[in-house]
Amino acid sequence: MSLLQHAFWDADCAAALSDETLLAAMARFEAALARASAGAGVVPQAAADTIAQICGRARFDAAELAQGARRAGTLAIPFVKRLTAQVAAVSPEAARFVHFGATSQDVVDTGVVLCLAAACDRVRQLSRRLGDAAAALARRHARTPMAARTLLQPAVPVPFGWKAAVWLSMLARCHARFAGAARDACVLQFGGAGGTLSAYGASGAALMQALAGELALPRPAITWHSARDGFARLGAEAAILAGAAGKVARDVSLMMQAEVGEVSEPASEGGGSSSMPHKRNPVGCLAALEAAQRVPALAGTLLAQLSPEHERGLGQWQSQWFTLRELLCSAASALAAMAEVLEGLQVNTAAMRANLERSHGLVYSENVALRLARTLGKPAAHALTEKLCEAAQREARTLAEALRADPQARAAIEEKEIAPLFDPENCFGASGAMIERALAEWSAALSARETGS
Amino acid sequence: MSLLQHAFWDADCAAALSDETLLAAMARFEAALARASAGAGVVPQAAADTIAQICGRARFDAAELAQGARRAGTLAIPFVKRLTAQVAAVSPEAARFVHFGATSQDVVDTGVVLCLAAACDRVRQLSRRLGDAAAALARRHARTPMAARTLLQPAVPVPFGWKAAVWLSMLARCHARFAGAARDACVLQFGGAGGTLSAYGASGAALMQALAGELALPRPAITWHSARDGFARLGAEAAILAGAAGKVARDVSLMMQAEVGEVSEPASEGGGSSSMPHKRNPVGCLAALEAAQRVPALAGTLLAQLSPEHERGLGQWQSQWFTLRELLCSAASALAAMAEVLEGLQVNTAAMRANLERSHGLVYSENVALRLARTLGKPAAHALTEKLCEAAQREARTLAEALRADPQARAAIEEKEIAPLFDPENCFGASGAMIERALAEWSAALSARETGS
Amino acid sequence: MSLLQHAFWDADCAAALSDETLLAAMARFEAALARASAGAGVVPQAAADTIAQICGRARFDAAELAQGARRAGTLAIPFVKRLTAQVAAVSPEAARFVHFGATSQDVVDTGVVLCLAAACDRVRQLSRRLGDAAAALARRHARTPMAARTLLQPAVPVPFGWKAAVWLSMLARCHARFAGAARDACVLQFGGAGGTLSAYGASGAALMQALAGELALPRPAITWHSARDGFARLGAEAAILAGAAGKVARDVSLMMQAEVGEVSEPASEGGGSSSMPHKRNPVGCLAALEAAQRVPALAGTLLAQLSPEHERGLGQWQSQWFTLRELLCSAASALAAMAEVLEGLQVNTAAMRANLERSHGLVYSENVALRLARTLGKPAAHALTEKLCEAAQREARTLAEALRADPQARAAIEEKEIAPLFDPENCFGASGAMIERALAEWSAALSARETGS
Amino acid sequence: MSLLQHAFWDADCAAALSDETLLAAMARFEAALARASAGAGVVPQAAADTIAQICGRARFDAAELAQGARRAGTLAIPFVKRLTAQVAAVSPEAARFVHFGATSQDVVDTGVVLCLAAACDRVRQLSRRLGDAAAALARRHARTPMAARTLLQPAVPVPFGWKAAVWLSMLARCHARFAGAARDACVLQFGGAGGTLSAYGASGAALMQALAGELALPRPAITWHSARDGFARLGAEAAILAGAAGKVARDVSLMMQAEVGEVSEPASEGGGSSSMPHKRNPVGCLAALEAAQRVPALAGTLLAQLSPEHERGLGQWQSQWFTLRELLCSAASALAAMAEVLEGLQVNTAAMRANLERSHGLVYSENVALRLARTLGKPAAHALTEKLCEAAQREARTLAEALRADPQARAAIEEKEIAPLFDPENCFGASGAMIERALAEWSAALSARETGS
Repeated sequence: MSLLQHAFWDADCAAALSDETLLAAMARFEAALARASAGAGVVPQAAADTIAQICGRARFDAAELAQGARRAGTLAIPFVKRLTAQVAAVSPEAARFVHFGATSQDVVDTGVVLCLAAACDRVRQLSRRLGDAAAALARRHARTPMAARTLLQPAVPVPFGWKAAVWLSMLARCHARFAGAARDACVLQFGGAGGTLSAYGASGAALMQALAGELALPRPAITWHSARDGFARLGAEAAILAGAAGKVARDVSLMMQAEVGEVSEPASEGGGSSSMPHKRNPVGCLAALEAAQRVPALAGTLLAQLSPEHERGLGQWQSQWFTLRELLCSAASALAAMAEVLEGLQVNTAAMRANLERSHGLVYSENVALRLARTLGKPAAHALTEKLCEAAQREARTLAEALRADPQARAAIEEKEIAPLFDPENCFGASGAMIERALAEWSAALSARETGS
Repeated sequence: MSLLQHAFWDADCAAALSDETLLAAMARFEAALARASAGAGVVPQAAADTIAQICGRARFDAAELAQGARRAGTLAIPFVKRLTAQVAAVSPEAARFVHFGATSQDVVDTGVVLCLAAACDRVRQLSRRLGDAAAALARRHARTPMAARTLLQPAVPVPFGWKAAVWLSMLARCHARFAGAARDACVLQFGGAGGTLSAYGASGAALMQALAGELALPRPAITWHSARDGFARLGAEAAILAGAAGKVARDVSLMMQAEVGEVSEPASEGGGSSSMPHKRNPVGCLAALEAAQRVPALAGTLLAQLSPEHERGLGQWQSQWFTLRELLCSAASALAAMAEVLEGLQVNTAAMRANLERSHGLVYSENVALRLARTLGKPAAHALTEKLCEAAQREARTLAEALRADPQARAAIEEKEIAPLFDPENCFGASGAMIERALAEWSAALSARETGS
Repeated sequence: MSLLQHAFWDADCAAALSDETLLAAMARFEAALARASAGAGVVPQAAADTIAQICGRARFDAAELAQGARRAGTLAIPFVKRLTAQVAAVSPEAARFVHFGATSQDVVDTGVVLCLAAACDRVRQLSRRLGDAAAALARRHARTPMAARTLLQPAVPVPFGWKAAVWLSMLARCHARFAGAARDACVLQFGGAGGTLSAYGASGAALMQALAGELALPRPAITWHSARDGFARLGAEAAILAGAAGKVARDVSLMMQAEVGEVSEPASEGGGSSSMPHKRNPVGCLAALEAAQRVPALAGTLLAQLSPEHERGLGQWQSQWFTLRELLCSAASALAAMAEVLEGLQVNTAAMRANLERSHGLVYSENVALRLARTLGKPAAHALTEKLCEAAQREARTLAEALRADPQARAAIEEKEIAPLFDPENCFGASGAMIERALAEWSAALSARETGS
Repeated sequence: MSLLQHAFWDADCAAALSDETLLAAMARFEAALARASAGAGVVPQAAADTIAQICGRARFDAAELAQGARRAGTLAIPFVKRLTAQVAAVSPEAARFVHFGATSQDVVDTGVVLCLAAACDRVRQLSRRLGDAAAALARRHARTPMAARTLLQPAVPVPFGWKAAVWLSMLARCHARFAGAARDACVLQFGGAGGTLSAYGASGAALMQALAGELALPRPAITWHSARDGFARLGAEAAILAGAAGKVARDVSLMMQAEVGEVSEPASEGGGSSSMPHKRNPVGCLAALEAAQRVPALAGTLLAQLSPEHERGLGQWQSQWFTLRELLCSAASALAAMAEVLEGLQVNTAAMRANLERSHGLVYSENVALRLARTLGKPAAHALTEKLCEAAQREARTLAEALRADPQARAAIEEKEIAPLFDPENCFGASGAMIERALAEWSAALSARETGS
C-alpha cells in the first residue's frame, strides 16, 4: 500500500496487513512447519531448531522479492530462496529442510491467514466502538423528535434515538456475521505439491494437526487451496460492514447539510477548505463513504475468483492478498471514522424540531385522522382529514389552524385535545420497544462474538 | 424475466420468483395485515374478512401495474389501488381498511421475502443434490489415480475422489452458510409511514408480532427498511454457491477437453453443434459457468446499496427484487446443471492413468527422493534425484529407466522396491483421511441445515 | 424481461430488445444469409427465396425454444431446428440450406447486433432530449444565483445555469462517445464453424461482404466471436450515460429536499405515498438513480467476459444479450426520466437566493478580500478579511455588518462599494464563458453524432 | 502501492503513478498556477518566481501528509500547507500567493491527470509491443494448421496465424480506443472554490487558458470536478485492454497444457515450482490473467462514482487516484507479460497437427460433404457424409478409410481427390483475407494513434 493510501485507512489495520507483517507471517509458517516436521520425525530436530531460529530474525528486501515474484508467478519462490540462503549461511545441512513438503500456496495462503486474523480483530474492535456509540445515541435520544425522511422528503416524526437504533441493529448483525466469516476464513492451508500432503505418506494428517497447533489456527477438513469461498465470504462481510458504516455516514452527512443543520461532526483540526475558510466539512462521513464506495467491487472480485483451474488456478489466489488488504483496511477506515463521528456527534435538537415544524403540521395528519375516527368513524374521518390537509396547504396555514377553522372538525374534537395531536411524541408508535430490542440485539452480538453466527 | 432467459434458469426457482408469485405474495401480506389488525382491534373484523377473501382471489394486470409503478416510483401504489378497487367492488366500507397503517415498502419488501423463502428452499434442494453427487464420487474414486494440475500443468498423482472431496468441502460450507443467510434475510418488514408503526400507537409492537405469526415469518428487532444487509448477505451467499458450482464446472470442462478426455458429461439430447455434427459439448458446465460469471456483479450491486438515504432511499430497495431474482435463479441454474453432470458423469479412469504416464515418471520424483534418503541421507538423496530427473528428460526415457541405469541409485535400491515407487497409490498422502473428513463435514452441513451457521 | 421490470424501463427501448424482436432479428439473419449465399452460388436461388419467405413469417414458441436452449447451450440450435421445420413444411429441398455454412454464434450475435442498433438509436434520442433540456436551463438561468455546494456544504454563489452547463458538458461527451461505441459494436458476426468461413472456401470473403450488405451492417476485419471488446465498450458507455443521468438526478433530488426547496419535479399523477398523502416524491430522480446503481455491475460483467476460451468460450457470449438488454434499458430509463424532469423542472429562484443568504454573507468573503487588497495589498487584506469573518460568526451578524463596524475596513472601502461585494452576480467568475463553451460542445456533439468520436 | 504489489505490476507504469510522482505533479500545478497568475497580473511576478522555484525542489513527508489528509478529507490541504511553509521560509510575502484562487480538487485532479498522461503513454507502448508480436505471429503462421476449439472441443482446422489475427484485431481496436480515452481524460481541472473561477472575476477564462498552456494540457469547456465520465471511460478502456491481454493469456495457457503442448512460454529464470522441479509454468499468462481478473471491478468502481453530490461529492473523487493507479498498472502488467510471452513464444507445429489428427479426420467432414455435393447434389451428399462419419466413429477408423470403404462414395470420388479433402489447408476458408485485413487494421490503429478514435 502507498503512504498516501494510508490517508484513507486505519493505521492499526494497515500495520497488521503490511508487506513486512506478511513476510514475518510467512517466516512464522516456515518455522512452525520445521518444528512440526521435527516432531513427526520428518526433519531432524537440530535442523528444525536452526530453521525456526533464523525465521525469527530473517530479513527480506521487498523490492528484490517483488522482482523474483514477478518472474516466478508467486512471492513464495523468492521468499523461500532468500530464507534458505539465510539458513544456509548458518547451517547448509538445515537449509535442505527449509519449506520441506510444503508448496508455494501453503506458505502464502497461511501467511495471509495469520495477517488476516489480526486485522479482523482490529475490525471487530472498531465495529464494537461504532456500535457502542450508536447504542449510546439510541438510549440518549429515545424521545428526541425529528422528521423521518422517505425519498428525501419529510414523512412523520420519529425519535432520533430510534434512527440510531436502526443503525445499531444493522451493526449488530454485521458485527456477528463478520466474526463468523473471520473465523471461517482464518484456517490453516497445508497441502504440499498437489494438495494431498504426498510427501509425508501416512504421517501427513498428524503433521497437519501439529502444524495447526503450532500456529494456533484451526485445521481444515481438507485442502482449500482451490476452494476459496472462505476468503470470498470474509470479503463480502467486510464490504457489508463498510456499507453499514456508510449508511450512518450517508444519514449524518445529509443531516449536517447547512440547510438541515441537525447534527455536526465533532470539530477536528484539518476539516476546513483550501479555498473557503468558513467551511466545516463532514470529513469523517467522507472517509466512510469513500470506503463504502470502493468495497463492493473489491468483494465482487473475490466472488469472481471462486472457479480457479484444478488444484491451483491462474491469477485467482495470487492477488487475493491485495484485494483482502484493501477490503479490510477500507472497512476499518470506515468504522473508525464513523465511531469518532458518533462518539462526538453534536446534536442540534432544536433544529430537528424546527425542521419538523416546517411542514405546517402536515406530518401529524395520521394523528388527526385517528382521533377523528373515534368520533366520526374511519371513512368520514379520513375524508375530513384529507380536506383539512388540502385547506392548510392552499391557505398556507397550519393543519391545526385548518382544523380549528373547520366546523365539523371542531364539533368532533375539544380544544384541549388538539395540542396533543401535534405533539411529536404521540407519533412515536412502537419506537420505544424497537429501541429496546435493538439494544438487546447489540448486547447479544457482543457476547456471542466468539460463536460468530 | 423473459422466456428466453428461462433457458439458463432453473424452472422451479424461476416460478418461485415470477411476477405472478410476487403479486400473490403481496396480496398475502395485505390479507395477513387485515387479519392481524382485526385481532388488534384496529380494523373491524368484517372488513378484515372481506379484504382477506378478496386478496385470495385478486387478479392484477402486470402491464398496467408496471406503468403505474413507473409513475409512482414503486409497484406498491398501483398494486394497493387495484386491490382496493377489487375490495371496494364488494364492500366500499372494507376498502377503506386495505393496507391500513402500512407503507409501500412494507408490502413490497415482505412480498419479496415470502418469495425468497421458497426460492431459497429450492436452491438448497439443488445444492444438496450437487453435494450428494460429489460425495458419491469422493467415495467411489477414493483410490482412482489422476494428475493433480497446478497452473494447468501436471503436478503429482492424486485420487479423483480426493478432487471431488475438495469440491464437496466447499459445497458443505456454502450449503450451510447459504441456509444461514436465507434465514437471516427472510424476515418480516413492517414499519408503516416512517418505520415506527406510528399509526398504531402503543399496539404496534403486538400487531407486528401478530402479523409475523400470520405470515410464519420471524419478527425483526426493528424496522430494516433502510438497513438492507440481510439481502446483501443473501446475494453474496447465492453468488458463492454459484461460484462453487462454477468451480466444479471449470474442472469438469477442462477434464472433458478432447486432448485430456478424463470425464464426459452424461449424454443428453441437444448438446451438439449447429455446424459440426461430430461434437459433444459441455453444455452443463457452460450453464454453470455462465451463471458463475454473472453473479459476482449482481452481488456487488446489493453490496453497493447498503447506504440508502434516511428512512427510504432513492433507487436501492426498489430494484433489489430484480437483482435477487437473477442471483437466486442463476445459482439454482448452476447447481441444477452441475448436479445433473456429476450424477451422470462418465469417468474414464484409463485416460486419467494415461495422462499421468505421459510425464515419464517425473511426477513420482518425490517418492524416489524419499526412498533414497533412507539409504543415503537427505542431502545426497535430493541431489541424486535431481540428477536422475535431468537424465530422464535429456535422454527421453522414464525416471525408472534412469534410476536403473544409475550405479549409485541401483546400489541403494533393490529391484523389487522400484515398481512401488512408481505406483500412484503410493503418492496419495493424507488424501484418504481428508476424504473422510470432507464426507463428515457434508453430513454435518446437511443435519445442521436448520441452524444455518 | 418481466412485465414488472418494465416498470423501471423505457418502453420503446424494451420493445427493441424484447424476446420477440430478437427472434425476428435472428430470422432476418437467416433470410439474408440465404439470399447472399444464393448470390454467391452456394445455395440455389429457389431455396434461398423459400427460406427468406418463411423467415419473414416464421413463428416461434419462446417457452419451447428456452427449454431447447438449455439443453443445447445456445438458443440457436432449437431456433434453427424450428425454422428448418417451418421451411421443410413448404420445401424439404430448401430446408437443407437453412443456416448453411453459419454457426450458432453467428445467428445469435448478429441477431443481437440488429436489436442493439435500434435500441442504441432510442438511447441517443433520449440522451439528446436530456441534453437539450439541460441546455435550455443553462441558457435560461445563466445569471440565476444559487449556492455551489462542496461536500454538501455551501461554498460560493454560482449561477444555476452554470450548474446545468456542467451537466450538459458531461452529456455532450457521453452522447458522442456512446454513439461511437454503438457504431463499433453493431457489426456483422459471421465466421462459420470455427470462424474462418471454412464452408465457403475462396468465396467466403465475398459472401461476408454480401451478407453485411443485405443486413446493412458494417463488415468486420475478421471474426469477433471470441473478441468481445465491442460489447464491453458499448456496455461501459451505456453505464456512463446512465451515470450522467444519475448525476443530474442526484443534484435535483438534493435540491428538492423540503429543507432546501430550490427545484421540484414536474407534477405527475402517481408520485404520492401510500401512507402519507402530503408527500411529493422525486420519482423521476428515483428511476434514474435506480438505473445508475445497477449499471456499473452489469458493465463490469461484460468487462469480466473478455477472455473466453479459444474460438467459443463457456458462458461468456451466451448471456451477453441479457446483460446488454438490462444495460441499454436501464440507460434509456434513466435518460427518459431525467429528460422529463428537466423539461418540466419547477425552479424556485427565491429559495435559491434565500439559501445563499443563510450564510450571513460569508460566501462573499472572497469578494471582500479582493477589494481590500486593492487598497491594503494582498497580505493585509487577507488577514483583515479573516478577522471580519471570525467577528461575524462570533457576533452572529452578517459579514457586511462586521465590515461596516471595523474601522480599518471602513477606511479602505466606501459605503457605496459595499453592496456590490455582496451581490452574487459579482461572484460568477468565468461562468458565462464556461456556459457558452458547454453549449457549443453540445451543438458539436449533436452535429458530429454520426462520426461518434 | 506496496513493494510486493509491484511484483504483479509494470515497473515503469508504477513509477509514473507513484506517491512521489503525484506529489511532484501537484507541485508542478502550483508552480504553473503561480506563473499563469503572474502573467494575468493576479499575483506579483516576484512571488510567482519564488513559488515556482520552491515547487521545483520542494520535499514532502508522505507519512505526515497522509495523516493530515485523513483529518482534512483531502491530500491537498496538508500538501498546500507544507508547500506554503517551504515558500514562507524563503519569502513570507510570496507564501501568501501559494495556491491562490485554486481549490483542493484543482491541484489533486490536475496532479493526477499529469501522472495519468505519462502512465497512459507507457500503456500504449506496451499495447503496441503486444500487437506487434501478435502481428508477427499472424504473418508467420498464416498457414500453420491447428484445431479451432469451440466450447473447449476441437472444431475445424484453422491457421494459427488466423487465431493470432483475431487477437490482433481486438488489440487494434483497444489500442485506438484507449488512446482516445486517454486524450479525453487528461484535461486540466481548474475551477476554484465552487468551480466558476470566482476569485478571478473576468480574467478567469484567460487564466485557465494560460494555465493549460503552462502544463501542456488541453483546457476543458467547463469545470469537470463533478462530471467524472472521463476517468470512468479511461478506466473502462484500461480494463478492456487488460481483458484483451487476458484473452491471449487464456488461449496460450490452454495451448500450453501438457496434454495439448502446442505452445510454450519462453523459458525464464524463476518459472518453476517450489515443490516440483520438473514443472514449467505459464507465469506470463498468470500475470495477465491476474490483472484481467481484477480490473473489471476497479472499472466498475469508477462507473459507480459518476453521480457525486453537487459541486464536490463525498468519497468519489478522493480515491479515484488509487483506483486508476491500480487499473493502469494492472493493464500495463498484463500487456507487458503477454508481449514478452508472444515475442518469445515457442510454437510446436507438430503438436498442433497431431492434435488435429486425433479426431480421425472428422474435422474434415465439411470438405467431404462439399466435394460429394458436386457429384451427388447437396441433399444426397450431406446424408452420405453423415453416414460415413457414423461409420468411422463406430468402427474406430478414420473418415478417409470409411470413405474408401463405401461403394457410393468411391464411385463419386477418384482416389487422387481423397487426400486433398483431408488437407487442413483446404479448410482455411477466408482466413487469408481476414489476416490481411487484421494486419491493415493494426497499421491503421498505430498511425491513427494521436487521433484516438
